Amino acid sequence: MFQRLPSITEALQALTALCPPIQRIESLPLVDSPGRVLSSDITSQANLPDFNRAAMDGYAVRSQDTRGVSTQAPVYLDQGESALPIRTGLEVPEGFDAVVMLEDTVVRGREVEVMAEVHKGRNVSPVGEDVKVGDVILKEGHRLRPPDIALLAALGIKEVQVYVKPKVAIIPTGGELVPRGSRPLKPSEVYETNGLMTELYARIWGCEPRLLGVVPDDPDKIVEAVKSSLDADMVVIIGGTSVGEKDYAPRVVGSMGKLLIHGIRMAPGKPTTMGSIRDKPVICLPGYPVATFTALYLLVRPGLKRMAHLPEAITSVRANLARKIPSRPGYVSLSRVALVREEAMPIMTSGSGILSSIARADGFVIVPEGLEGFEPGEIVDVMMIE
Amino acid sequence: MFQRLPSITEALQALTALCPPIQRIESLPLVDSPGRVLSSDITSQANLPDFNRAAMDGYAVRSQDTRGVSTQAPVYLDQGESALPIRTGLEVPEGFDAVVMLEDTVVRGREVEVMAEVHKGRNVSPVGEDVKVGDVILKEGHRLRPPDIALLAALGIKEVQVYVKPKVAIIPTGGELVPRGSRPLKPSEVYETNGLMTELYARIWGCEPRLLGVVPDDPDKIVEAVKSSLDADMVVIIGGTSVGEKDYAPRVVGSMGKLLIHGIRMAPGKPTTMGSIRDKPVICLPGYPVATFTALYLLVRPGLKRMAHLPEAITSVRANLARKIPSRPGYVSLSRVALVREEAMPIMTSGSGILSSIARADGFVIVPEGLEGFEPGEIVDVMMIE
Repeated sequence: MFQRLPSITEALQALTALCPPIQRIESLPLVDSPGRVLSSDITSQANLPDFNRAAMDGYAVRSQDTRGVSTQAPVYLDQGESALPIRTGLEVPEGFDAVVMLEDTVVRGREVEVMAEVHKGRNVSPVGEDVKVGDVILKEGHRLRPPDIALLAALGIKEVQVYVKPKVAIIPTGGELVPRGSRPLKPSEVYETNGLMTELYARIWGCEPRLLGVVPDDPDKIVEAVKSSLDADMVVIIGGTSVGEKDYAPRVVGSMGKLLIHGIRMAPGKPTTMGSIRDKPVICLPGYPVATFTALYLLVRPGLKRMAHLPEAITSVRANLARKIPSRPGYVSLSRVALVREEAMPIMTSGSGILSSIARADGFVIVPEGLEGFEPGEIVDVMMIE
Repeated sequence: MFQRLPSITEALQALTALCPPIQRIESLPLVDSPGRVLSSDITSQANLPDFNRAAMDGYAVRSQDTRGVSTQAPVYLDQGESALPIRTGLEVPEGFDAVVMLEDTVVRGREVEVMAEVHKGRNVSPVGEDVKVGDVILKEGHRLRPPDIALLAALGIKEVQVYVKPKVAIIPTGGELVPRGSRPLKPSEVYETNGLMTELYARIWGCEPRLLGVVPDDPDKIVEAVKSSLDADMVVIIGGTSVGEKDYAPRVVGSMGKLLIHGIRMAPGKPTTMGSIRDKPVICLPGYPVATFTALYLLVRPGLKRMAHLPEAITSVRANLARKIPSRPGYVSLSRVALVREEAMPIMTSGSGILSSIARADGFVIVPEGLEGFEPGEIVDVMMIE
């Protein structure tokens, strides 16, 4: 039985050691790179702008020609000679060093009446004002956002080197499972859905999931499925993680590699198991859907995010708790809540088999292991369900 | 010139009227539906579980057989007759109404010694405990998350009806623009990047962008591009929005439909223009990249999110301001900030042409039009750049 169970903190420490950030890299065209993480610094090979650029519509001039000039004392400059019409964004030609705004000029035949003094560089973006050759514009580890990508494009960069997405193999196990939607259910059967949930979350969390077909409660078949999955960066086995006769997953992990943790002080999700096979992390999730969800969020997510070089923070809102959240002392527990008129309303449900309790929730509250729950009126952090 | 400019609030009101939530719908397989928004309530046609399900490993029994039973006073039940071995998740057969946990039993030959009283329904998830036939499980407008999709799959649902993504046509204009990466630049030329940034953001914001090729500063060509884009739900024209001779975009909108707003009291992004053509919203963004970015976030984003039935809230963090943010009174302004040791550090830059100022920023602070800025030490909301 689950003796001297480790805490979630201990489990995370063990997991962290097994989930180093992925070092494999790939090249991607810019348009496919949003959300991806740079595998090296990007140093600019170009200036931006790479010419002296007019920042206003008006006339390019030599600043010394406008010295002391004002509306009372304008200067008349020869158009095309000492005052060149120019538009925002165009090159200020060699020999000119400032732009007089259109509003400060009047055209008088071949001459331009200039009514304002402009200093050297006025209304001109000089070469390299935005980025200079040799500038480190984005650093290794930076997650690319659209304006970053626009900047790279502006510098003539076409591809970026990014870390590859961690590959996650997902193995749903259980004799009661039927591939979803394949045929009507008989008694004692259910559709496979935990693997689907894991697959969809792995994608949202920046990974590349591979969902295997349903594997029956047969240790040989589970071994086979795990063997075929060891090219992945993480293996997730779902179901059969407890201590019953047919709970083969922990024994398979132990036989193929090292069983590190069998059972964690978290609720739901206590039977969650963890080990390593050929240095690959293998996590066994319990088959009850709320337990799967809890173990996904509290354990799999930090592991995957770490491998993917992505931040772990979950978007949260602070809210008043509308009702008591009870919790088992010594266990970290995850309580589903709905946000109702900005209050956090715990969703009362009997067990971790109730999938609809997550569908009805906007987020969840984590009760630390040292507490017996939260009281109504307490301010809690509600982690929003992605 | 920009006279009596409307505020961003007025601009948003006008935009809201032009951006009703999309009513077109489509059917999607579950696996493609994360992040999509349901176009109608989903009512369950099935019970979950659809059989009385054992919630523990143990023996299915008739509860009355265990009345008064304890470790001191066990009862001996005939195995296979009045005590059926059962595993978690399997069907509790007709005629049995409770499950005794394995821990409370000992096998004695053909008999099972039961050492605990179980009441009717104990350790059994009855038919429909999770979801009953006729339950509304998810409502119109709900954004699908992995556990919602798992629940639908558990109920045997294979496809969902969702709102289609709003289509956005993006028209970059400007004689200085060169398709990105196509060839080296000549003086006065720049690569087209604002259209790319808009395309990538439209995708992140739940829309389907279509980026057109670069259109020169020629009103006829702009008209042509707009005409070919009127199948979209929103048209975004970039560049040529100001009041110069070659700023054709506002005039094109006026000639083809209704020019509603030309210039907004926001900084950067003042020349942003808005109108409608055949009831479609047409937004003209200024060509300076920081102005494009500002108008995208403050105007295009709320419009697109509204059309896409998605929430508008931007993830934000509260931070101490490290330095003063100056701002033009009467204008809403957007100031880029980097988060440095949990403080918000404004990025000092001369103008809205400096694309690298966004790449260096983690987020932005919005200064309301009534303020002249924020002082160092003030607590500000930093909107994180997606």
